[in-house]
Amino acid sequence: MPSRELVIGIDIGGTNTSVGIVDREARISYRIELPTEAEKPAEMLFERIFKKLQGRLQKLSAESKIVGIGIGAPNGNYYTGGIENPPNLKWGNVNLVKLAKKYIDLPVAVTNDANAAALGEMLFGAARGMKDFIEVTLGTGVGSGIVVNGELVYGHDGFAGEMGHVIVRRNGRLCGCGRRGCLETYASAPGLRRTVFEKLSQTNEESVLRDIPFNDLTSKMVYDAALEGDRVAMASFEFTGKVLGETLADAVAYFSPEAIVLFGGLAAAGDFIFIPTKQHMEHNLLPIYRNKVKIIPSGLPEGDAAILGSAALIWNELKKD
Amino acid sequence: MPSRELVIGIDIGGTNTSVGIVDREARISYRIELPTEAEKPAEMLFERIFKKLQGRLQKLSAESKIVGIGIGAPNGNYYTGGIENPPNLKWGNVNLVKLAKKYIDLPVAVTNDANAAALGEMLFGAARGMKDFIEVTLGTGVGSGIVVNGELVYGHDGFAGEMGHVIVRRNGRLCGCGRRGCLETYASAPGLRRTVFEKLSQTNEESVLRDIPFNDLTSKMVYDAALEGDRVAMASFEFTGKVLGETLADAVAYFSPEAIVLFGGLAAAGDFIFIPTKQHMEHNLLPIYRNKVKIIPSGLPEGDAAILGSAALIWNELKKD
Repeated sequence: MPSRELVIGIDIGGTNTSVGIVDREARISYRIELPTEAEKPAEMLFERIFKKLQGRLQKLSAESKIVGIGIGAPNGNYYTGGIENPPNLKWGNVNLVKLAKKYIDLPVAVTNDANAAALGEMLFGAARGMKDFIEVTLGTGVGSGIVVNGELVYGHDGFAGEMGHVIVRRNGRLCGCGRRGCLETYASAPGLRRTVFEKLSQTNEESVLRDIPFNDLTSKMVYDAALEGDRVAMASFEFTGKVLGETLADAVAYFSPEAIVLFGGLAAAGDFIFIPTKQHMEHNLLPIYRNKVKIIPSGLPEGDAAILGSAALIWNELKKD
Repeated sequence: MPSRELVIGIDIGGTNTSVGIVDREARISYRIELPTEAEKPAEMLFERIFKKLQGRLQKLSAESKIVGIGIGAPNGNYYTGGIENPPNLKWGNVNLVKLAKKYIDLPVAVTNDANAAALGEMLFGAARGMKDFIEVTLGTGVGSGIVVNGELVYGHDGFAGEMGHVIVRRNGRLCGCGRRGCLETYASAPGLRRTVFEKLSQTNEESVLRDIPFNDLTSKMVYDAALEGDRVAMASFEFTGKVLGETLADAVAYFSPEAIVLFGGLAAAGDFIFIPTKQHMEHNLLPIYRNKVKIIPSGLPEGDAAILGSAALIWNELKKD
């Protein structure tokens, strides 16, 4: 009788897709990285994934058993099992559950990457044991996965938790979504870049960042400059933390979470982002919430987070039974 | 054997307290109104309540049975059963569950008035059958009760759902909480009054409202003026709906609810408030949420809403068993 239960975690990104076989202790015993090839139909990605997996699945020991497949994907919808017009994949609406079930008849669950990260955090990371927290992913975009009373907030249509598109500056920066002033235009890696260029345009402060073209500037370069004491770089992190902290103060008024977990590229800037974020959040909190809400870094190993999050979807389902 | 279960609903306000005996079909078979006398200790209010109730409870027919007591109160906390420094009661921190249990040994549950209204709406009102909705109370203040997956969002400390204190204008109007720009300073009855006076100060538009002192101006007067086509009055509702609609668009990004229920004094202005609120919400929504979220008036009878909401707390508890 099989005693070791395993889950297949699949994280579909705009460029690359990661697949791993994960146990309940977050150990990844096997992994595949492959190009998503988003210009071809989704069916072909699943064909390639399961072709690669097949050999491994046949070699599983008698004690091991796959119990489900968790998929994280842009605009992934837990209720429908599909993705709906993801901005960086040309697939339109595709039912990923159906696609996966063609190859393996097991429970399949789908959600977006930020929700998957939140579940991963709750099962394996910095939010272990928490029932109310918010995971904020600060990367190329800004996403969020919100956990209330131990469960992800999916909302009526499955698309809840889009904190990146809360409007934080009326008539602010133009966002990829077509509106203006979304958090994502400030607290993402491209948002940090926009802030640097705004500061360069508004001050005469000397800065190594004046020698780098817009298209070449990375968050890492801003971080390195800040480490050297570059004032434009430091002010840019400060402003990013201010906007993020103000937004988190409002999020606390809605959710009153135990903690807010910051995940992704920008969070790697450490104190440069955590200190102003915390400070401006506290400054903007309603008094009853002050000094109660932790802001903490993700506890998921960076390279494994996406696979662990996707796998956590299934572990979380099984927990309910 | 008793076949008719009844709940005692208690709504504690700054000035008055309402008590009712409520059945599962929202029928109030007995009610008491009494002054809260907030300057005296909370113990004395409970003494008066149960002294008045006693006679009625003894006369209950053999088929009837009280199964619990639900209490709605300012800053009421579901987790602790207490109220914590409510702004308009001088009680400090009081455990209401303990106070009530002195008189009757039954389940007692406490929450704030907006949360109670949301539960009442879900069991008896406009949100019947819904699992994801937001109740917004537009009165002297602005409160909210948020339901996710059929359960109220209490948060880690029991104080979640303070939409009235989301900051909607950076450096905006001074709020009673000590901060600036809270939704409450725009979308409450006093907020509407402030908007009227702002408009009067900024335009030369003739208006009947120019003859009314600040302290005398009520929402009803603004409504009556708007009905007569007074442009300052109409513009004031339009602006109130704009600020509220913008805020609701952000709330949708967090919760993606099926509906938003507007409750309380300002909601009685009907189209004057619903039309601009809906319009500005839609205009500010992320595309995936457009034309999905209803904005509807409360379905609770106005005079009974507070008692029904408080009673709903217990019906909701019993539902879980």
